[in-house]
Amino acid sequence: MKNSNFPSISIVGATGAVGKICLDILNERDYPVEKINLFASSRSAGKKIIYGSSEIIVKEATKNSFEDSDVVFISADSSVSLNLAPSAVESGALVIDDGSAFRMKEDVPLVVPEVNESDINFHKGIISIPNCTTTPLVMALDRLRRLSKINRIQATTYQAVSGSGSMAVSELHEQTKNILNNEEISKSVYPHQIAFSLIPQVDEFMPDGYTKEEHKMINETRKILHDNNLKISATCVRVPIYYCHSEVVSVDLEDEINVNEIIEVFRSASGIKLIGDGLNEDYPTPSFVQGKDEIYIGRIRKDSSNQKGINFWIVSDNLRKGAALNAIQIMDSSIKLGKIPKFR
Amino acid sequence: MKNSNFPSISIVGATGAVGKICLDILNERDYPVEKINLFASSRSAGKKIIYGSSEIIVKEATKNSFEDSDVVFISADSSVSLNLAPSAVESGALVIDDGSAFRMKEDVPLVVPEVNESDINFHKGIISIPNCTTTPLVMALDRLRRLSKINRIQATTYQAVSGSGSMAVSELHEQTKNILNNEEISKSVYPHQIAFSLIPQVDEFMPDGYTKEEHKMINETRKILHDNNLKISATCVRVPIYYCHSEVVSVDLEDEINVNEIIEVFRSASGIKLIGDGLNEDYPTPSFVQGKDEIYIGRIRKDSSNQKGINFWIVSDNLRKGAALNAIQIMDSSIKLGKIPKFR
Repeated sequence: MKNSNFPSISIVGATGAVGKICLDILNERDYPVEKINLFASSRSAGKKIIYGSSEIIVKEATKNSFEDSDVVFISADSSVSLNLAPSAVESGALVIDDGSAFRMKEDVPLVVPEVNESDINFHKGIISIPNCTTTPLVMALDRLRRLSKINRIQATTYQAVSGSGSMAVSELHEQTKNILNNEEISKSVYPHQIAFSLIPQVDEFMPDGYTKEEHKMINETRKILHDNNLKISATCVRVPIYYCHSEVVSVDLEDEINVNEIIEVFRSASGIKLIGDGLNEDYPTPSFVQGKDEIYIGRIRKDSSNQKGINFWIVSDNLRKGAALNAIQIMDSSIKLGKIPKFR
Repeated sequence: MKNSNFPSISIVGATGAVGKICLDILNERDYPVEKINLFASSRSAGKKIIYGSSEIIVKEATKNSFEDSDVVFISADSSVSLNLAPSAVESGALVIDDGSAFRMKEDVPLVVPEVNESDINFHKGIISIPNCTTTPLVMALDRLRRLSKINRIQATTYQAVSGSGSMAVSELHEQTKNILNNEEISKSVYPHQIAFSLIPQVDEFMPDGYTKEEHKMINETRKILHDNNLKISATCVRVPIYYCHSEVVSVDLEDEINVNEIIEVFRSASGIKLIGDGLNEDYPTPSFVQGKDEIYIGRIRKDSSNQKGINFWIVSDNLRKGAALNAIQIMDSSIKLGKIPKFR
């Protein structure tokens, strides 16, 4: 039994792109906590991070780091999650993991609170958050399936470099400067030039010609929507922008649904904002959506190749709802549902 | 009857992005011509343009400018085409028009020589070239329909700013510089920031929620493939790159075709190059394809949402095969078919 009414939170990967936003959101919300512990790799240990009016020293995470934690957020390489999550669970903490290590495990709920909050009830110590392209997609699909059975989904993405971490943000910045100055570019994060170009590959290739990122979108969507037979395909493309992932989504419905009904079901959804009437220069763009919590949908229209199809455009901040914000929402839901083991 | 064996060529819009590439290609090929006349708006009249070892003075085009022309290329606003093309035709020239003014007219062939060269035989003085996103798409589709009937096409584009003309190239350049220097950006060509962002709109909106560019892709594809009932949808997005349009294409076929057969039918096609085996970091990118004549295809794979579907990625230089090169190929084909009125 805890003495405090507020959770003690650890962030593993606190100096990374997602970890920083996680801390930003807690700070913006003046989130009531007993304590915040920040962890990173040995390289970043010793760094001081300002949080509100205090300063927190970043420590190197070990298996014994989580004794006093109620909730442990992990946003790091899969190897870090695989190494640290089990001991965090053993010490009684709830692990909320941003990586792909546990997402498809049967006893790990994969949660977007607006869509499948109640899956939290079945956790065994670890809850995963979906890939940053899956989250906005399932939020839209979950609303559409209230209107009609979904027969098929095709998603095509436009993904920002921040999805590959801070080094990729620097790579786009440096390459862009180099090209403007007519200098040679160098590459380390991506196998090809990203500045003023496109890379039709996110993550590694699989034997079926899809990339791991595309598999994630397909498999995670099926898991979150509890439909293992859902017909879905994805093509993921990296674009030369810093923040926000965008998606062109085509959905074949079982029934013919009026566009106005689609607009209404999105408009009434928590976490979704609509922009524009689809007939003018008003629609979500990455430069507008950056830093915002909601996912933004626009360009909703009938699919001209299928009477019962719907096309639309989604933009969401990949570091916020795509990662850090969703993680914090899972903590909120877990508190509400009484599913944080040490904290009741 | 002409005295020379070589055509006399006029280029209207000679100082624009496409006009310049047109002249570049003629020069690269040391194209045998009797004479080249260059025309532009009054603003550019008087400019001198180097062509090979000579210098050509740009003139303002009027209705009487084409008396001695066999072939008139027009790459300018639709209003210019509508104003000048009829008098060029009256003076006996073949007009090859890059704009959208005549494309959907019944007596105007819309031609990609690799696909529907014989449509040239029915021209009444004007031949249109397709929109720069249509051309690569129909080249791929034309090969696929040799393997199976096509039931449905969905195309999603990543379009370079040069498709909006030279001013848009400057706008991307200036905005990028401004953002790197933490300065305010200004907008004139596009309604939203394009540097480090995306604009899910190319051309104006239509009452059905599609843009004109999307209508062009849909209607021009139907016309070129001679199939008015073809089921096709498109979503066109402007991306912050200078040159080359890319497309994610999903095609539902009537029959289940092996990926290797698809690869073979593309590999044997004139004007198409394949990159990669779909299983590694090898695929076409805009920075690689820029300046190349062929359209490049990669990432060919089964559609995971349809057993009889195929997905792939196309990149092509929008100013070359998407515009200037296709125009010159139409002239070549017209000479071969004896369809240049004054030149036999």
